[in-house]
Amino acid sequence: MDQTVDFINVNRDRYVEELKAYLAIPSISALPEHAGDVRRCAEWTAEALRGAGLQNVRLIETPGNPVVYGDWLGAPGAPTVLFYGHYDVQPVDPVELWTSPPFEATVRDGEIYARGAADDKGQVFMHIKAVEAHLKQTGKLPINIRFFIEGEEEVGSVHLDEFVRTHKADLAADVVVISDSPMFDRGIPSICYGLRGLAYFQIDLRGTKSDLHSGSFGGAVANPAFVLAQILNQMKDRSGRIRIPGFYDDVRELSEAERAEWKKLPFNETRYRKELGAPKLFGETGYSTLERVWARPTFEVNGLLSGFTGDGAKTVLPATAMAKVSMRLVPDQQPEKIAELFEAYLNDVCPKTVELTVTRMHGGKPWMTEFDNKFVRAAGRAIERGFGKAPVFNREGGSIPVVSTFQEELGVPSVLFGVGLPDENAHAPDEKLDLGNFHNGIIAAAYLYAELAVVE
Amino acid sequence: MDQTVDFINVNRDRYVEELKAYLAIPSISALPEHAGDVRRCAEWTAEALRGAGLQNVRLIETPGNPVVYGDWLGAPGAPTVLFYGHYDVQPVDPVELWTSPPFEATVRDGEIYARGAADDKGQVFMHIKAVEAHLKQTGKLPINIRFFIEGEEEVGSVHLDEFVRTHKADLAADVVVISDSPMFDRGIPSICYGLRGLAYFQIDLRGTKSDLHSGSFGGAVANPAFVLAQILNQMKDRSGRIRIPGFYDDVRELSEAERAEWKKLPFNETRYRKELGAPKLFGETGYSTLERVWARPTFEVNGLLSGFTGDGAKTVLPATAMAKVSMRLVPDQQPEKIAELFEAYLNDVCPKTVELTVTRMHGGKPWMTEFDNKFVRAAGRAIERGFGKAPVFNREGGSIPVVSTFQEELGVPSVLFGVGLPDENAHAPDEKLDLGNFHNGIIAAAYLYAELAVVE
Repeated sequence: MDQTVDFINVNRDRYVEELKAYLAIPSISALPEHAGDVRRCAEWTAEALRGAGLQNVRLIETPGNPVVYGDWLGAPGAPTVLFYGHYDVQPVDPVELWTSPPFEATVRDGEIYARGAADDKGQVFMHIKAVEAHLKQTGKLPINIRFFIEGEEEVGSVHLDEFVRTHKADLAADVVVISDSPMFDRGIPSICYGLRGLAYFQIDLRGTKSDLHSGSFGGAVANPAFVLAQILNQMKDRSGRIRIPGFYDDVRELSEAERAEWKKLPFNETRYRKELGAPKLFGETGYSTLERVWARPTFEVNGLLSGFTGDGAKTVLPATAMAKVSMRLVPDQQPEKIAELFEAYLNDVCPKTVELTVTRMHGGKPWMTEFDNKFVRAAGRAIERGFGKAPVFNREGGSIPVVSTFQEELGVPSVLFGVGLPDENAHAPDEKLDLGNFHNGIIAAAYLYAELAVVE
Repeated sequence: MDQTVDFINVNRDRYVEELKAYLAIPSISALPEHAGDVRRCAEWTAEALRGAGLQNVRLIETPGNPVVYGDWLGAPGAPTVLFYGHYDVQPVDPVELWTSPPFEATVRDGEIYARGAADDKGQVFMHIKAVEAHLKQTGKLPINIRFFIEGEEEVGSVHLDEFVRTHKADLAADVVVISDSPMFDRGIPSICYGLRGLAYFQIDLRGTKSDLHSGSFGGAVANPAFVLAQILNQMKDRSGRIRIPGFYDDVRELSEAERAEWKKLPFNETRYRKELGAPKLFGETGYSTLERVWARPTFEVNGLLSGFTGDGAKTVLPATAMAKVSMRLVPDQQPEKIAELFEAYLNDVCPKTVELTVTRMHGGKPWMTEFDNKFVRAAGRAIERGFGKAPVFNREGGSIPVVSTFQEELGVPSVLFGVGLPDENAHAPDEKLDLGNFHNGIIAAAYLYAELAVVE
C-alpha cells in the first residue's frame, strides 16, 4: 500500500484541478434546461473512469438520464465491490446567496466551494482516484470493482429500481460502497449504519377560476393560500408531533442502548445551533437533537407559492396555492403506506371550499443495518488508516433509497463511507468539501479496497 | 343637452379607437421597470385633456409618479367638480392566463379586454370624452371642473395625502366625482355610498442562515414555511372570524334597515358562485355574501413564497418564508390602530424559533356617506338619463382611500359613479369593460355635469 499512498500524496494538486473541471458541469437533473449538461457530465464521468484504468466503461441508457458503468474484474476469488454514486446535482437557487459562482469551483480556507463538491461529485471522484492510484502503481486492485454512477439521484432516482432489477448481472457484487453522506463532525470520521426514507408530495389548491380583487370579493370565497395554511397547520401539533392518523404505527422506537451510545457522541448543541444560525432549536418533544434527526420521522414544507410575491403590494385574492411537502421516514415505515395515510388525512382536513390535487413526487425506504458486520468493520479499519483515528458509528437523517434497493433486489449489504461535513451545505448555497477530508478520503478508499479483500 | 348627446353617439367608434391607444401603454406602477411607461401614460393623459379642451393642463411632479392636472373654470357661480381617477394599472401576472395580450386592447362580444379597461383608464376616459362633447358642441361646460388623475393608485396612493394637503388651491371644489368602481350588476346601474379600507403587510420569517438539506437537518430546527402556516392559521377561526384581539372593537354593525334594503337587491348567489368558479362560497358566519363583501372586514393572504417552487422535488428545508397579507376594513376601523393590533398579535403568536419581520405596506380608511345627499341624488338622475333606469344604492368591498382624504383635507364629499361590472376582472387576467356601459357612461357623465349645475 505504501507506493499507492505515496502516489496519492504526490498527485494531490492534480486531483483538485481535475475535480474543478468535474464541478464546472451544471448537471442539474431537476431542471429540463440542463438536460444537455447532465449528459455531458455522464460522458465526463465515463472518461474519468477510463482514465483511471477501469474497463468496459460505457453509458447505459435509461428512460431518463444515463447510468455510467465501468469495472475491473481482474481479481478472481476476491470479493466484488459495487461502488454507487451520482453525477447529478441539486439546483442552485437562490443563486444570489452563493459567495462564488456555483459552477466555478473556488478554494477558500482549505475548502472547495461548488454545487456537487460534497454531494456527490467530490466523493465519487475520491474513489475514481483511489482506483487510479492502485492501477497506476501496481497494475491491479486487491478486489474486483464495478462503478455504477447514476444521474437522477437528486430527482428521486426515478428509474433506478427498474434499472437494478434489469441489470442484475452487471451489478453482481458482495458489498456496496457508497460515499454520499457527511462524517459525524470535523475531525470525527464515522460510518453510517442507518438512513431515513422519504415521501414527497405536491399539494395544489384552487379556490376560484382566476385571481380576484381582494376588495371586491374578499370575504365571499375561501382564500386558497389561507386554506393551505390551515391544512398544513393540521399536519403537526405544537409539540412537533405529526397528526396524520397511523403515521407512527410502524416507527421502530429507539432502543435504550442506542440512545445511550448517542449520548456519548461529542455533539455540541449550542455550536450546532449557531452554525445553522437558528434563534432556537426545535423538534419533537421527548427526543434529543440527534435522535430527532437520525431516528424520528418528520413533516417538512419544502416550498410555498401563491398569489403575488414580487416587491410591493398587490391586492389580489389568489386563485391557487401550492405547497411542496415531504416526510422523512424511519424504520419500519413504508413510503407507499405513508402516502396513503397522508392523502387520506389531507382529503379529510381539506375543506370543500377549494379543489385539492395531490401529486406523489417520489419516495424512498428507510434503511438500517448492524454496525458490527464484517464489511462495516473493514471500512472502519480503512478510515482509521486514512484519517488517523477510529470512526464513530452514526445514523444519518437523509435518504439514499438505493441502499434498500440493493438489499432487496441484489441481496447485497451497503457500507456508507462518507467524508462530507455536517456544514457542507448540500442542497444549499455555498456547498463545499474540505480538501483535507477529500485527500484523506482517497487514501482511506484505497485502503478500503485492501481491507475488503481480506474480510473472512 | 341634445346636441351634446348626438355628438357622443356619432363619435362612438372614435372613442373606442382612442381608448385602445390609451390601454396600450403598460403603466404598471408596482413594477420599477415600467417607470418610463408610467410617465408616458401621464403625458398621454395630459394630451387627451388638452384635446378635450381643458385648460392649464400640466403634469405636477410628486416624489413618485406625476399627477395629471387640467381644468375648465369658465362657469362663475356654478359648482366646481373635482374629477379624480388614476392612469396607472395593476401588474398582469399570470400573463399566460390572458386570452389576448393585456396591452393590445381587443374587442370581443361587446367588451374591450385590456389591463386598465375598467380600472381605471376606461372610466377616466369616459369623463374626458363627456367634457370634450360639451366643449366641442357648446363651447362651455355647465359647471367648473378640475381633473386630478394620479399614477400611484395601484400602489396605495403613497404620495396622495401629502399632495392633497399641499395643493388645496388646485383642488378646491364643491364635490368630488370618481368613476373607479363597478355597478351592481349588468343592467343594474348603481351609486356606491360605502367603501372598505385597507391595511396591507408583508411578513418575513427566517429560520436559519441558509437553506438546509431536509434530510440531514429535518427535525432539528423549526421550518419557517411551516411556522408561517401556523401563524396564518391563528389569524382567523373556522367560522371566518378574525382572531386578532380588539380587531372588531370599532366595527360599525349593519343596521337592520340596511340589511333589509340589501336583501331586496337582485343578487343571485348561485350565479355569483359559478361566475367565480368557486366550488362553494365561504365567509363569516352570520352574514350574507353581500354583507360579507360590503360591510364586514376581512383577513386575506395575498401572496406566499418559500423554498423550492419550481417543477419537480427539491428536498430543501427553507431558510425563509414570506407572506403578503391584508385586511379590508369597514367603518369605523382605523388602519393605524389595526396595524398596531395586528403587529402585537403577530409578535404574540410567532414562536421564538424564527426571526420575524413585519413591513407595513399601505393602508386606507374605510368610507361611508348618506346616500340621499344632493350630489348623490344628482348623480342618480344622470345615471337614469344615461342608462335608462334609476340606479340602486350599494356599498363596495374595495378601497378608494382618497375618498377619505378629500373629505378630511378638503371637506368635500364624493360621488362614486362607476360603470364597471362585477366580473370585470380588475386585478386579474382578462380585465374588461362593457362597451355599452362605456358609451352610456359618457352620456351619463355629460348629464352629470348638467345635473350638478342645478343642485340647490
